Amino acid sequence: MKKEFEFINWIHHQINDQQSNLIAGIGDDAAIFLPQNDQEILISTDLLAEDIHFKLDYTPARLLGHKALAVNLSDIAAMGGVPTFFLLSIARPKTLSDEFISEMLLSMLQLANQHQTTLIGGDTSASANKLFLNITILGNCPRGKSIKRTGAKPNDEIYVTGQLGGSNLGFKLLQAGKRILNPELTKEETLALMAHLQPQPRLAIAQSLCVEEIANSMIDISDGVSSDLGHICEQSNVGARVEAKSLPLFPGASLDQALNGGEDYELIFTVSPSNIDKLKALMERFPNLAVTKIGTITENLERLLITDSTSIPLLARGYDHFA
Amino acid sequence: MKKEFEFINWIHHQINDQQSNLIAGIGDDAAIFLPQNDQEILISTDLLAEDIHFKLDYTPARLLGHKALAVNLSDIAAMGGVPTFFLLSIARPKTLSDEFISEMLLSMLQLANQHQTTLIGGDTSASANKLFLNITILGNCPRGKSIKRTGAKPNDEIYVTGQLGGSNLGFKLLQAGKRILNPELTKEETLALMAHLQPQPRLAIAQSLCVEEIANSMIDISDGVSSDLGHICEQSNVGARVEAKSLPLFPGASLDQALNGGEDYELIFTVSPSNIDKLKALMERFPNLAVTKIGTITENLERLLITDSTSIPLLARGYDHFA
Repeated sequence: MKKEFEFINWIHHQINDQQSNLIAGIGDDAAIFLPQNDQEILISTDLLAEDIHFKLDYTPARLLGHKALAVNLSDIAAMGGVPTFFLLSIARPKTLSDEFISEMLLSMLQLANQHQTTLIGGDTSASANKLFLNITILGNCPRGKSIKRTGAKPNDEIYVTGQLGGSNLGFKLLQAGKRILNPELTKEETLALMAHLQPQPRLAIAQSLCVEEIANSMIDISDGVSSDLGHICEQSNVGARVEAKSLPLFPGASLDQALNGGEDYELIFTVSPSNIDKLKALMERFPNLAVTKIGTITENLERLLITDSTSIPLLARGYDHFA
Repeated sequence: MKKEFEFINWIHHQINDQQSNLIAGIGDDAAIFLPQNDQEILISTDLLAEDIHFKLDYTPARLLGHKALAVNLSDIAAMGGVPTFFLLSIARPKTLSDEFISEMLLSMLQLANQHQTTLIGGDTSASANKLFLNITILGNCPRGKSIKRTGAKPNDEIYVTGQLGGSNLGFKLLQAGKRILNPELTKEETLALMAHLQPQPRLAIAQSLCVEEIANSMIDISDGVSSDLGHICEQSNVGARVEAKSLPLFPGASLDQALNGGEDYELIFTVSPSNIDKLKALMERFPNLAVTKIGTITENLERLLITDSTSIPLLARGYDHFA
């Protein structure tokens, strides 16, 4: 096994951290960077714990590295920001090989490069028996323009990117013993597994929604539409009506998975009726990403799911880690 | 057990996050703050893993909360910075009570308040069996003034704050079954246990060393003088001569513990001969903190420990988490 300092040196050599606003990256007690005067700074942190967020028996190293960073990038996307830097903490059980760790990191750095995001620090530790990853991510947004959960207004139209329920569908397939690279998988099964194992942060469209001031509120789907739209409603002091038949279901996913499955890392955002033309123009520039209207924000605080025959309360069923 | 969202709400209510430069703290996908134009931003992250960094059988909750933040504050101190914000990730085994978690957090927030540092985000998760804490800390420093490991120059005098080896001495006492609050402890034993369990970040003197431009290089002692001074030497491309008899030993600690024990979280810094008068004036303003000259930086790259009879290589013996 590589020594800890060799490992840190090895990571450091994979990174291009020669940037004018980065005074010092990996290698001192703290990293140092210069803020940009016209930007506000975004910061978020996400932990991935073995046997809670992932199991090693179904998670290839490279997909774990991707996902650990992707869920953090998704938090910056949810504000409409541009990711800049990240820090990575790893607590590593002795049973995990150098090859696993290297492959995980190279994949993470590849995703970071795609989004011009630089690893500037971290911490490494042994772990008694489980792998833990924690990433803290920084981003920029023009001052005053971050899209918050608090900004939804009555009559806003509610939109989601992509398709819903695929991650949970993929998770169920993993629990049923399906594995990627298994030659018997159908194409739909492969896509569902990848939706769970390799989510894509929606940074590009989010940044356009931000700088063009199209969305009033936004959140990414980590817990599911019911919970995450619920956060927007609570924090904006509004209600919502969601049309069941308009939810863009991932092929094979159920309505329940779309509403409550979580981990899709798509965006939910709300748009004033006066901005719908701007949104439609924007959508034409993203022909490969579905953007679907799923409902309307209401002054009435109720959150309702509207079906053909009835309307029922849209209850938050997000995962409770402490339950 | 509290629900996860109740727990997060409870934490949120313990915090005063109404600050002019903090646009949004806990509660959105990312926190948002405004940088100050004349400052550079420092950021560092430190992980504490159960049974690696601490054991629950000898670590009271309040001291764990203190130490998790203190070691992060110490990284900001090591740059000469002023801490501003922090984010906390907790992966919590189901066996750990609400009381333990609350006590740990209140103690952490008390230390944060002492240093005007605000909790602005985090992540909570279950854990399969061990407790993991990860903190990311932010700080400010006037632009261009952070004290780096790279700045040591030949003929700089080498200084340390406080006393050395106490943390390792305390750790050995814990391993031997001694516990704080045990009525049979001697005063010296209590002090050693507290040096290990409740380290004090040296922020005030570090900030003076920075803004008064007294120190050329600085690091905090996490791995031990041999390793940490070694980092300064390597990164500044210099050597060092350390006088064994001048090392300020913690009462009861050995020379080996002072050099290689680690976790003292005191500061090592180097000062040009022309700045010694400024340092002496500064020391008078910190009458309760020992500041001791322990050696000299040399152009020759050797690192030597000088004793009465001989000089021997000062080998880095820091802890290797991957060994």
